[in-house]
Amino acid sequence: MSRIVQKFGGTSVGDVERIKKVAERIKLTVSQGHQVVVVVSARAGVTNELMARAKAVCAEPSEREMDMLLSVGEQETIALTAMALHGHGVEAVSFTGGMAGIQTDRLHTKARIQTIDASAVEAQLSEGKVVIVAGFQGINEDGHITTLGRGGSDLSAIAIAAAIKADKCEIYTDVDGVYTADPRIVSAARKINEVSYDEMLELASSGSKVMQSRSVEFAEKHGVIFEVRSSFNFNRGTVVKAEVPHMEKIVVRGVAVDKDQAKIIVSNILDKPGSAAKVFRAMADANIVVDMIVQNVGRNGIANLTFTVPLGDTLKAQKCLEPVLDEVRGGHVAVHENIAKLSVVGVGMKTHSGVAADLFKGLADADINIDLITTSEIKISVVLDLDRVDEAARITHKVFGLDAD
Amino acid sequence: MSRIVQKFGGTSVGDVERIKKVAERIKLTVSQGHQVVVVVSARAGVTNELMARAKAVCAEPSEREMDMLLSVGEQETIALTAMALHGHGVEAVSFTGGMAGIQTDRLHTKARIQTIDASAVEAQLSEGKVVIVAGFQGINEDGHITTLGRGGSDLSAIAIAAAIKADKCEIYTDVDGVYTADPRIVSAARKINEVSYDEMLELASSGSKVMQSRSVEFAEKHGVIFEVRSSFNFNRGTVVKAEVPHMEKIVVRGVAVDKDQAKIIVSNILDKPGSAAKVFRAMADANIVVDMIVQNVGRNGIANLTFTVPLGDTLKAQKCLEPVLDEVRGGHVAVHENIAKLSVVGVGMKTHSGVAADLFKGLADADINIDLITTSEIKISVVLDLDRVDEAARITHKVFGLDAD
Repeated sequence: MSRIVQKFGGTSVGDVERIKKVAERIKLTVSQGHQVVVVVSARAGVTNELMARAKAVCAEPSEREMDMLLSVGEQETIALTAMALHGHGVEAVSFTGGMAGIQTDRLHTKARIQTIDASAVEAQLSEGKVVIVAGFQGINEDGHITTLGRGGSDLSAIAIAAAIKADKCEIYTDVDGVYTADPRIVSAARKINEVSYDEMLELASSGSKVMQSRSVEFAEKHGVIFEVRSSFNFNRGTVVKAEVPHMEKIVVRGVAVDKDQAKIIVSNILDKPGSAAKVFRAMADANIVVDMIVQNVGRNGIANLTFTVPLGDTLKAQKCLEPVLDEVRGGHVAVHENIAKLSVVGVGMKTHSGVAADLFKGLADADINIDLITTSEIKISVVLDLDRVDEAARITHKVFGLDAD
Repeated sequence: MSRIVQKFGGTSVGDVERIKKVAERIKLTVSQGHQVVVVVSARAGVTNELMARAKAVCAEPSEREMDMLLSVGEQETIALTAMALHGHGVEAVSFTGGMAGIQTDRLHTKARIQTIDASAVEAQLSEGKVVIVAGFQGINEDGHITTLGRGGSDLSAIAIAAAIKADKCEIYTDVDGVYTADPRIVSAARKINEVSYDEMLELASSGSKVMQSRSVEFAEKHGVIFEVRSSFNFNRGTVVKAEVPHMEKIVVRGVAVDKDQAKIIVSNILDKPGSAAKVFRAMADANIVVDMIVQNVGRNGIANLTFTVPLGDTLKAQKCLEPVLDEVRGGHVAVHENIAKLSVVGVGMKTHSGVAADLFKGLADADINIDLITTSEIKISVVLDLDRVDEAARITHKVFGLDAD
């Protein structure tokens, strides 16, 4: 008998028919003799409906009330899922995040899990029941409902798996797992059977939309092995776990493309200590996530500072750079939105040299120009023209031997 | 400064526009310097939508999960109402039933309130906030969500008013208050300015749909004075309170019609001790509410037993009477569905004689036949033909001087 946590996302429980299918799948796991905790999201679309109503009654809804409102979505799903299991003759009980003992800090709409008191969940499991827990939500120490922000239900599932020492955590979604590249861009992309936490993190921060970084970080910290797989079929998914030696045999695990980036160039600033700090302090104060940073120092102590920001933040970035320009004697801010980021990720890079050279040669052979370059221990990212990035991804995928046979 | 509880029903918060209107009304009360607790129902229609989804996933949804599901409706409304108040610059905070300290027994879908720990509500009031509480719901001692059954939000409001010792409890609905008769039947009907708890109870049990009996009973027990009024205008409503001497000057407070009744005659049963008991034991075991009961004993120790049951229960009643027939040597069960009950209610009957005579004469003059008759200290009910009952109501309304000037 194993303990298994199964998490089903919004499309997996999108309507009553899908919920019944999910119940069948849970029943199958139960019938194999396992103890099962299920974490569910709100039905796809419900959160947007609720947000639209919130906007209709108040231009700027408070975050505390937004949490009270949005947590309703998951509460509906847990009850319906428990009922669907009853319909299949499986004993089940639904718990809100608070009832499942998920306690968070007070940061409404993006709360962090502080502790999980799993005793109520354990008690139900020992009575032979499936426990259905509302993802995405918890309560703070005042007993007020909080939500965990984007990707919160994955986090709920992984945190509960850690708390009840589950043998396995399955993240069911609408894709078959993690791919070597986005199959819509690279038709030769293949599903990856296993990937290390660090690779998964680098892929997540490079544009792969499968999972949010913090869920992966939480899993790594608590040693929760999880599998990303589809709720629409019974194919094996992608297992995410700690790095093991044989993983390094693969130099590049995957290629990620992020088209949601813009490049900002602050040119002709005085190259003296503190100039760059002022620029990035201004970005941080405006809550803008700066990604790739390159500084070129030219003659006469004049430097150019280039970096990327999320596409949606370019206007805000320009605005908050203006007051800084005088201070750093910067002459000009330029924004380039027609760029994209291509990344190759793999723990094998730690022991294999020549990855950068292979990447650059592959792109050069196709006459694709590389703009910025940054590297980490297991990742190389380059900025390219937006209209060449898909082609670059296909070339790179092939160069590193990732194409399907 | 007074403490006021305001309860808004499903049509009063039916959509975002109505919720904004409700927020304006609450703001008005706040601006008069009062402390306000608001109790809201689910938006009209939401409960039915949720029930339909429950039925779609499971033929017989468990009551525990039904409570988990349905409580979502009120939780949405409290958040939206709090947001709408914020939009009007009013400080407000939303509480689920559990957060408001409403503790119930374990009887899911029809839980009874056991205690209210209003300390969290009091704390918010003392900070100058409006507290928006989800009606219809509470938690049991295991921390599981319960619901209070039909009319539960009224009960929540009255129970909270008792717990915080409110000066006033206003029940906002889609009618102007309690009327001397249903205005759709008796066009001369007038709104009643004040009515005693006992009269309100008799009206409720006689077909007036304004409020459920148990909310009135709870208010009487705890001395909560409440006003039933419309959320769609600013008219005075009907104040429900303990009987005061001047109330007795009015002999008949109102006329109620209940068309949702059927008459059952069990004829030719042996008139010996226990026969009637067996019949009504069978009804009780089937959860059928029996209302008016009349027994006629004829010659030879043979009796006829006549009583009324809710129209929807006639088939069930016939079915569970069959096995009893042999035992009580009953020959025959007849069901008459084309009947209705007319009641006149008034605390003045305690001190005025001749009410029955006036009622019977009024109906006799119009050639309307009376079938069954029952009386209580402050009520006389008669069963009539369904197709004459509207006319009978108009006549009775006039006979007792209730017609508008």
